Amino acid sequence: MKLTLQALEWTGTRLKILDQRALPETIRYDDYDNALGVAQAIRTMRVRGAPAIGIAAAYAVVLSVRQHSVLDHPDWRQQVAADIALLAQARPTAVNLCWALQTMQTVLASYQDCDGIEKRLDVVDEAAKKIHADDVAANYKMGELGADVLGTATAVMTHCNAGALATGGYGTALGVIRSAYRRGLQTIYAGETRPWQQGARLTVWELAQDGIPSTLIADSAAAWLMASGQIDWVIVGADRIAANGDVANKIGTYALSVLAQQHGVQVMVVAPTSTIDYSLTSGAQIVIEQRAASELLPPMYQRPDSLISAWNPVFDVTPARLISALVTERGVILNPTEAGLRSL
Amino acid sequence: MKLTLQALEWTGTRLKILDQRALPETIRYDDYDNALGVAQAIRTMRVRGAPAIGIAAAYAVVLSVRQHSVLDHPDWRQQVAADIALLAQARPTAVNLCWALQTMQTVLASYQDCDGIEKRLDVVDEAAKKIHADDVAANYKMGELGADVLGTATAVMTHCNAGALATGGYGTALGVIRSAYRRGLQTIYAGETRPWQQGARLTVWELAQDGIPSTLIADSAAAWLMASGQIDWVIVGADRIAANGDVANKIGTYALSVLAQQHGVQVMVVAPTSTIDYSLTSGAQIVIEQRAASELLPPMYQRPDSLISAWNPVFDVTPARLISALVTERGVILNPTEAGLRSL
Repeated sequence: MKLTLQALEWTGTRLKILDQRALPETIRYDDYDNALGVAQAIRTMRVRGAPAIGIAAAYAVVLSVRQHSVLDHPDWRQQVAADIALLAQARPTAVNLCWALQTMQTVLASYQDCDGIEKRLDVVDEAAKKIHADDVAANYKMGELGADVLGTATAVMTHCNAGALATGGYGTALGVIRSAYRRGLQTIYAGETRPWQQGARLTVWELAQDGIPSTLIADSAAAWLMASGQIDWVIVGADRIAANGDVANKIGTYALSVLAQQHGVQVMVVAPTSTIDYSLTSGAQIVIEQRAASELLPPMYQRPDSLISAWNPVFDVTPARLISALVTERGVILNPTEAGLRSL
Repeated sequence: MKLTLQALEWTGTRLKILDQRALPETIRYDDYDNALGVAQAIRTMRVRGAPAIGIAAAYAVVLSVRQHSVLDHPDWRQQVAADIALLAQARPTAVNLCWALQTMQTVLASYQDCDGIEKRLDVVDEAAKKIHADDVAANYKMGELGADVLGTATAVMTHCNAGALATGGYGTALGVIRSAYRRGLQTIYAGETRPWQQGARLTVWELAQDGIPSTLIADSAAAWLMASGQIDWVIVGADRIAANGDVANKIGTYALSVLAQQHGVQVMVVAPTSTIDYSLTSGAQIVIEQRAASELLPPMYQRPDSLISAWNPVFDVTPARLISALVTERGVILNPTEAGLRSL
């Protein structure tokens, strides 16, 4: 199947990253040949979305290995480890970042220095490409599984962008919506998703690229939409899922989940198993990223003596009890619990 | 007490309207000498906020009477009636608009043509100025009554702008916040209020003009703020209140009220009794204004063949059962019911 747009393109020696800050007006790819550049691209949200961040970090490790192998310096492992440590700190909430870096570290640990540089580069290149390909395959699988769960539902809402742009391709929440649309899903609402406007700038645009119509709403209109009986499901992605099923996702997901429960609307979380952090017993342990006040405040409020500040958490945690279905590439868990998650 | 900024200034022959679309960057007053111009200013949200719309409409009736009295044409009453009909249609949800126009019509009906033009102009001028002055007085009264209800609460959140800019002065919800701040209220959060950003552009700016610090949040962060136990009350204004206590207010108010109930946060609605529409038995009868999709959609989505649409209701209705306190200039009703509202 044709993927309309790629957040990431790997050339073998460089990572091309679509600068999502400029979308939808401008489609521009920047080339990166070192890990530090990719870390900066993650930090500044040129690339965003938990799975896409993980994939970008995996390719960044390949770039790091390439860079530090050029002179075949005996310290190359330390230099790559330093790059990995830096990448791990680029953003705190999405666990896929750590997961991808750990996967790459495991691959590096299994590589023997006596195997030579060419083998070294091949091994990491294959590992990163596998992370990428596995993510795309997982998304197609989740798309079908999620569409099965939706059944004859005719109208859904999504929040933020858990689409092709947030993943290796096809998307998690938008993968389900794409699959369901082909089966007859009729109406798709997307919340704007302040302050970064992922819904307005990315989701509705990405769907339109695939010929799928959608309707944008202000985030604060979702409750009124639910009260008027216009949607059956809220479908979202996830940045980190605790072992008990609590889900960290874009700020506003928690609000939508509380409101959904009050209006008889169901909540579906779509995420690959790499998003599950079994080391955390509950969502209370998830670090919530606070981003700069400048993302909310116009310049004239940012003077030193300003009386106007901002509180800008960019994720929140939805307790498992508010989630109707967790869709992963290994299966669907209805009313997720720790036992259910462990069964994956 | 000094009023820091006026949405409306009456010169006796012209109405100066602060163009709130340009705030906070630009402070610009436009002069109006006829009712049609004022109707257009209301429609395009140069002036907004239910009480301010009512006051502007009252002054517009004065301008209409002045205009149509110049030639002392015997048809002046029909011409004024036509202007009033046009003003009434400028925006549908705020009842204060109709209330102010009806008040002016009653005054006009009591005026005898034999009293002469000078008396005619005096009568309508005094009536409009009284509507304005009464609104300011009501706001000061509500400010104190609401602050009494807040008691020792230390942190509140507001939505949209129910401040000096939305009224004759001092504000409804922001009037309570101003009064409570003088008594020791410490923390004030304001939601951005998409799509028009009244919270970001008007509320935090208006409070800063008075030396009151505040913190801006994305609308979708309110639930997370409540879950973290950081606020005691949500305080909002109202555009129309049905006889049973259901409240139409800026889109997002309903969401905040549902979320507040789920988090043990109380909801205060602050509005003059002119906002109560006793002709409506419930909020289901309130007309909710849908504004243009262009308020939500960037230009590139607005092409004729676009697959991207928008749903843009700018008000919603909060059922009375979610409201802890209704503060009016005639007293406070806790857990509002129809009997309570009729007692006013």
